[in-house]
Amino acid sequence: MVKAVKSEKKVEAAVAASKTPKYVYLFGGKDAEGDASMRNLLGGKGANLAEMSRLGLPVPAGFTISTECCTAYFKNGGQFPETLCAEVKEALAKVEKIMGRKYGDKENPLLVSCRSGARQSMPGMMDTVLNIGLTSSTIPGLIKSTKNERFVWDSYRRLIMMYADVVMEKAEGIDPVEGKGIRRLLDELLDQYKYIKDYKMDTDLTATDLKDLASAFKRRIKEVLGKEFPDDPMEQLLGGIGAVFKSWVGKKAVSYRRIEGIPDEWGTAVNVQTMVFGNKGDTSATGVAFTRNPATGQNKFFGEWLLNAQGEDVVAGIRTPSPLNKETKSEQNKHMKSMQELMPDTYKELVDIRNILEKHYHDMQDIEFTVDEGRLFMLQCRSGKRGGKAAVNMALDMLDEGLIDEATAVMRVHPNQVLEFLLPIIEPNIESKAHQLIKGLPAGPGAACGEIYFTNQDAVQADRMGKKVILVREETNPEDVEGMRVADGILTARGGMTSHAALVARGWGKSCIVGASEMQVDAANKTLRIGDIVLREGDQLTMNGSKGVAYQGALSLVEPTAGADYARFLRFMTMVDKHRTMGVRANADNPTDAKKARTFGAEGIGLFRTEHMFYGPGSAQPLFLLRKMILCVNTQDRTNVLKELFPAMKKDIKDTMTVMEEYPVTVRLLDPPLHEFVPHSQLGRKELSSALGIAEDEVHKRVDALAESNPMMGHRGVRLSVTYPEVTEYQVRAILEAAAELIVDGKKVIPEIMVPVTCDVRELEYVRKIVVRVHEEIQRRFDLKKFEYRLGTMIEIPRAALMADELARVAEFFSFGTNDLTQMTFGFSRDDTGSFMNSYLEKRMLGADPFQTIDQEGVGALIKLAAAGGRHTNPKIKLGICGEQGGDSASVEFCHNAGLTYVSCSPFRVPVARVAAAQAALKANRTAQDKD
Amino acid sequence: MVKAVKSEKKVEAAVAASKTPKYVYLFGGKDAEGDASMRNLLGGKGANLAEMSRLGLPVPAGFTISTECCTAYFKNGGQFPETLCAEVKEALAKVEKIMGRKYGDKENPLLVSCRSGARQSMPGMMDTVLNIGLTSSTIPGLIKSTKNERFVWDSYRRLIMMYADVVMEKAEGIDPVEGKGIRRLLDELLDQYKYIKDYKMDTDLTATDLKDLASAFKRRIKEVLGKEFPDDPMEQLLGGIGAVFKSWVGKKAVSYRRIEGIPDEWGTAVNVQTMVFGNKGDTSATGVAFTRNPATGQNKFFGEWLLNAQGEDVVAGIRTPSPLNKETKSEQNKHMKSMQELMPDTYKELVDIRNILEKHYHDMQDIEFTVDEGRLFMLQCRSGKRGGKAAVNMALDMLDEGLIDEATAVMRVHPNQVLEFLLPIIEPNIESKAHQLIKGLPAGPGAACGEIYFTNQDAVQADRMGKKVILVREETNPEDVEGMRVADGILTARGGMTSHAALVARGWGKSCIVGASEMQVDAANKTLRIGDIVLREGDQLTMNGSKGVAYQGALSLVEPTAGADYARFLRFMTMVDKHRTMGVRANADNPTDAKKARTFGAEGIGLFRTEHMFYGPGSAQPLFLLRKMILCVNTQDRTNVLKELFPAMKKDIKDTMTVMEEYPVTVRLLDPPLHEFVPHSQLGRKELSSALGIAEDEVHKRVDALAESNPMMGHRGVRLSVTYPEVTEYQVRAILEAAAELIVDGKKVIPEIMVPVTCDVRELEYVRKIVVRVHEEIQRRFDLKKFEYRLGTMIEIPRAALMADELARVAEFFSFGTNDLTQMTFGFSRDDTGSFMNSYLEKRMLGADPFQTIDQEGVGALIKLAAAGGRHTNPKIKLGICGEQGGDSASVEFCHNAGLTYVSCSPFRVPVARVAAAQAALKANRTAQDKD
Repeated sequence: MVKAVKSEKKVEAAVAASKTPKYVYLFGGKDAEGDASMRNLLGGKGANLAEMSRLGLPVPAGFTISTECCTAYFKNGGQFPETLCAEVKEALAKVEKIMGRKYGDKENPLLVSCRSGARQSMPGMMDTVLNIGLTSSTIPGLIKSTKNERFVWDSYRRLIMMYADVVMEKAEGIDPVEGKGIRRLLDELLDQYKYIKDYKMDTDLTATDLKDLASAFKRRIKEVLGKEFPDDPMEQLLGGIGAVFKSWVGKKAVSYRRIEGIPDEWGTAVNVQTMVFGNKGDTSATGVAFTRNPATGQNKFFGEWLLNAQGEDVVAGIRTPSPLNKETKSEQNKHMKSMQELMPDTYKELVDIRNILEKHYHDMQDIEFTVDEGRLFMLQCRSGKRGGKAAVNMALDMLDEGLIDEATAVMRVHPNQVLEFLLPIIEPNIESKAHQLIKGLPAGPGAACGEIYFTNQDAVQADRMGKKVILVREETNPEDVEGMRVADGILTARGGMTSHAALVARGWGKSCIVGASEMQVDAANKTLRIGDIVLREGDQLTMNGSKGVAYQGALSLVEPTAGADYARFLRFMTMVDKHRTMGVRANADNPTDAKKARTFGAEGIGLFRTEHMFYGPGSAQPLFLLRKMILCVNTQDRTNVLKELFPAMKKDIKDTMTVMEEYPVTVRLLDPPLHEFVPHSQLGRKELSSALGIAEDEVHKRVDALAESNPMMGHRGVRLSVTYPEVTEYQVRAILEAAAELIVDGKKVIPEIMVPVTCDVRELEYVRKIVVRVHEEIQRRFDLKKFEYRLGTMIEIPRAALMADELARVAEFFSFGTNDLTQMTFGFSRDDTGSFMNSYLEKRMLGADPFQTIDQEGVGALIKLAAAGGRHTNPKIKLGICGEQGGDSASVEFCHNAGLTYVSCSPFRVPVARVAAAQAALKANRTAQDKD
Repeated sequence: MVKAVKSEKKVEAAVAASKTPKYVYLFGGKDAEGDASMRNLLGGKGANLAEMSRLGLPVPAGFTISTECCTAYFKNGGQFPETLCAEVKEALAKVEKIMGRKYGDKENPLLVSCRSGARQSMPGMMDTVLNIGLTSSTIPGLIKSTKNERFVWDSYRRLIMMYADVVMEKAEGIDPVEGKGIRRLLDELLDQYKYIKDYKMDTDLTATDLKDLASAFKRRIKEVLGKEFPDDPMEQLLGGIGAVFKSWVGKKAVSYRRIEGIPDEWGTAVNVQTMVFGNKGDTSATGVAFTRNPATGQNKFFGEWLLNAQGEDVVAGIRTPSPLNKETKSEQNKHMKSMQELMPDTYKELVDIRNILEKHYHDMQDIEFTVDEGRLFMLQCRSGKRGGKAAVNMALDMLDEGLIDEATAVMRVHPNQVLEFLLPIIEPNIESKAHQLIKGLPAGPGAACGEIYFTNQDAVQADRMGKKVILVREETNPEDVEGMRVADGILTARGGMTSHAALVARGWGKSCIVGASEMQVDAANKTLRIGDIVLREGDQLTMNGSKGVAYQGALSLVEPTAGADYARFLRFMTMVDKHRTMGVRANADNPTDAKKARTFGAEGIGLFRTEHMFYGPGSAQPLFLLRKMILCVNTQDRTNVLKELFPAMKKDIKDTMTVMEEYPVTVRLLDPPLHEFVPHSQLGRKELSSALGIAEDEVHKRVDALAESNPMMGHRGVRLSVTYPEVTEYQVRAILEAAAELIVDGKKVIPEIMVPVTCDVRELEYVRKIVVRVHEEIQRRFDLKKFEYRLGTMIEIPRAALMADELARVAEFFSFGTNDLTQMTFGFSRDDTGSFMNSYLEKRMLGADPFQTIDQEGVGALIKLAAAGGRHTNPKIKLGICGEQGGDSASVEFCHNAGLTYVSCSPFRVPVARVAAAQAALKANRTAQDKD
């Protein structure tokens, strides 16, 4: 019995031991414990180092300490797990065996680097320590083995500078004294020494100089930080590992994660890798390359290199790198020697590796390499970042090369990237050197360059004189639309991503920056002040609406060509549509926009805003009549004005239906509160008074009576139908009569009438009665046997979503108005979020601006509820979305997964939505297959 | 086989026959087919006629045609169901047998009435036809049997007038020619005849006169309506039945249902009953009585009667009725003879019936009776309407009499009725004669009488001079609160039931009428215009805030006494609380209101609005500091001002906690947008500029920067905490320090900190960090071992309701802010609903104003969702409501059923909520028992 108990205990111990997680993963020697699929555990860098090792590529041996270890470290209150030290020593022994050198050895010491590596690349946000393992006892051996005393002392002083900064100061959370960190103090010592010796460059320093400096550095560190620089190799190594972990919670890294939405729980891995040196002389080098051109997508090996240098030198920009090969040479660098020329054999070896990697990864790779005394080593490989055009070109090329299949090609392009084919941009080289003047929210993508104007009239006048106009306003309102229409770019000091300016600009594909709060707009004096800089009317300004940045003066823009590039875009989009299952429509309010929408591939109009006939060119007469109607005090007068307005109402709708041919057009009944249409200026009212023959006092009284405290939640949408049914009647008549006339002409038209701001089925029933009556009248009058139409509703009020099962008794389609739905669900007025949205995003109260990307948890829950409710009552109900988020790729994916029939967005975003919808379908397919 | 098939067919036929619904229910002869429980089927009148019959009371025999028949009639396109006619005839035969007379008989004819009777009383809204069955062939027999020729011809001309109006014109939907209906035309004939004959009164008409008139009437009818007056008894009867059905969809009835919220589907029953006559001479009479005094509740038989008259004469007010008995005599009518005096035997019979009815129904009954030549008949009995005080008195009396149990006594009083014990009212006799001047929304109940003033300052000054003030404004805003506080009544032209004026008024128990849109307020000239009437500053006005009506001049008010009445109120409320399971708290912001809340029985404060220290008396200095803080442009300046504000912040909270003793006080952090607190007038800004030493331009700039398009959805609540954490920190410190000081003094205090406008758990986490830090600091500073507090959140944003499970990770309590939640869920700005709410209620788009009664379908769904989500995460979470609806009885019932811990409402509504909560508990109990 006693024995049995003992053996049980043994088993328990064994089980416990097997439960101890493995934290360290070896790589190198053409094999590895990890692979590319283990990115979550080993980080991107570690996983790819392992993968390259397995591929037999020359990777300096090393090991990765997993992200799990990082999590355990922080859980442990900043202590390594107990088993880590033993694991590290074991792994180090294996690395020593592969490399034939020993860490801390007096004769032939191995040096290592400690580098961070998270799941997702966070360039420059975490820390690195190089040359770890150099101590008073290993230095002589390294000098002997390298026969390069200067190199060794230079490496040592670099180790001291980096280590003191990263491990001894930052990782310990020590605040720099008077703002001077230890790094800067050591830099000052170096500069003083060079000044005394009258050296111009670091390379002037001799071995002896560097040795003396190393001693001085160590003394200074003791004085400032109160600790000795560690002279024990293992202490150095563990210090480096801990410092990399701690840099995960460093200020820079944390705020980067906030912006990129990377969870804090992920943690970073640490890669401990044998040091190789590109700075041992003219047989050594270092470089960075892309397996294809990342700017154009061309299938040409593309890179830069530096002879006799360390990797850090390329990144830090201390020396200008040379072109890697013939293909990389340009006007600026064609005089410099390429690696292809100077190291043809090693270059050939690198080209072979490039080919292996592309075949293996089926994607363009971004690689780092070092040549250590003629021997090539691979230090990094990852999927390379690329611009939009490059992404499309590469996807198509690789498809043609048989490297990837169609589905993969579709997935390779971020939906927003297709916009690059359509927008003018600032010449990248010029922009990279330009000085940023104004920063705001990137409300309308693309670049614009022109003269600034401060009022609607000035803008229109300047446009007539052939000027390129940038309209600058405190914020815009519907009275500014003419100025906005003529402008190439719009810049406002207030407003958010879905403010009036932003919505209009995106709809028209105009460059737009809003909420540039640091600038002060003085429209009266026609000046724009940013700090000390004052711009006046007519001054040149260049905007990058994609970034939300503006520059002083005129920077040159690059226009999208309609040529070969555009053909490739069309080919890509055709392929995209094959994989898409959800419809994509456009929001368009006139034949011009409808035409644009068709060009961009819209399959109908999901939102035709009837009120837009009162904005923009040609709107003067309709707007006057509308104002007249608004000021009527009885139904009879209102009906008379409606009769006058009717022909214009019908014309816009009919022309748009004609452009859209057989595609559906959803016409929304009047939506905004009436107050939006009346003049707010004294002058405007005076003019209206004399035009209408109504006393000025009376105009004031009637206009003021329309004012509302919170117009967004006021007398608008279907509420206008309930109070002024005659207005709805004439709108319905315009829609149905336009359709009837087209049907008589032999066209196939099924008009869709959409009711806005609904919150109860009784509102829909009320409107339906009007629609049925008018429909019968028109069917009779036009002698139509069959005259179909559809009646549907916006779901933009939370209550509508909650009552969707009832609404579906009447509505044949739902269209989610996610702008308003987001406003009501959050209680965020989109015109007023400017004052707190930045704080919310910075402090991570919100993952993203919900006016840009559907809030899937809150607003999304309502959408799903409504979709389920609607389908429960009417399984055939059509479900769409017509909010701004309809053109946002994450939101499109959400809509696909929620089972929506279509998304509708501004014409310009239609291609984005098409790509996003195709990708959503492919992802959902993949998930479904994974489940099978 | 053949036989078997046949018998199957027979069975089918029998089944089909049994499926034919029964439409007609007999009553009379001390028995009935229906009873009082069948109100839904037989209507209130029919059910009670049946019940009285069963009780053996002398009910003239008849039958009720069910509401189901009415529904079938309309379903059938206005046709009777096939089986009805046969059923009616069958029932009529039985009635004839009971009454010993035959319908349409030449010798001894039976006459009947046709009366409507819906589930719920709709007084005067539907039609009645009397004396049906009089035709050329039955008239002689009736003359013979009654020996009263004049009576018969008078009955006939009355039948013709009523029938022509109700059955032949209205029920046929005929529009009166030039506004003159047939009734009016016949009245004109009558008047002309009387004029020619020089008669003063109808009673001057002889039998011959009446016979001639009947002939003339029939000719006129033929001329105007193109149809003969029907001379066939059965045609008359069916016409009468159909007309009553049709009156269900008549204009009056429909609009009454709209107002009272009665569903259209209910339909009306028709009661066909043997006619009895109170107008056959001095042995005949008619009367209306209540089994107890409906005004005071006193247990005294109370009624009015008319000798030799028909019931219609009492109702129409043609003759002034006499008192029924000694108890009913008053100063005005003590000279008139009572029934007790003139018909002592019949009166005794009536008293016996009164006693039987009270014992049977256990409630005060409203009865109608007729004495036909000395024989007493009961024509109606129903539960009697009563005032609030009477309701309480009766409930307590009947409890003491053993007539009802405690639960029933509690159910007998409508929650709102207890308010009568607390409010001044206009002397009812005076008000009934007064001419209504202004009609608006009844925003604050109770009466007020005083002089009108148009500005805050004038109101305050008048108050100082000892005047009673009625504040008249276009609409009120926070700057008016001093004027509102001194006013006895508040009257505004704009705003809804939850406008600023309404909220403040109800909170303070002040009489208030809002949205009186017909009046024009000219504050500059200090005049108020209603049509042609102009009132000036200082003119007297009397308001009935419970009705929303105001009268010109000073009407005398009745004050609630603190004496015997009030003692009964207290006894009733004590009983109520025994049956209540849900807590009732008050919304109060200062010690004065808190004291009032305690008096009214509040068990804590559910909402202490920290911002209210900036309104009202004594607020000048805090408001100045707040404005100073708002205009600060950096955190340091803001913190300095907060330090100055701190003592005042703490004092209000501490004083309130002291008043509430051991009851909980929930303090809400700053809620409104800052723009609400800054002066909007030029003068106000100028003053602020010089007081703060900030340039006027700068004041304008900073104030304007705070303006928002939709402030309700703007920078407010917890959003201020995120952008200005220092403000929250000082508020939290004020709350916790106030509590700590009281704890040190030996008081038991658990402060509750409530975060407003939350939409995400991360906001709560952000505030929690501040609270935890401040709490630790104060606990240390005051050396407290145990210092509990609770942190909770408002649920007033739809997203908060949707994310409640997450919020409950941090929140220890939820308080539903149903004002804002209703605003966001409906997309209704409560300040702006005035322009469409009336249309919505009139057109039945909404059942009730959701700002008064919780919308159970939409907003209620969110509340249930949130309650479930919160409890899922934290089963112990406390759930309350602190919106205005917390004092609305239907909403209180909803809250009880949703399982809320407490409701919180304005102090004045606390007794209402207590009664409503007790009734909700009793109802739920009953439902639960019914299920068992």
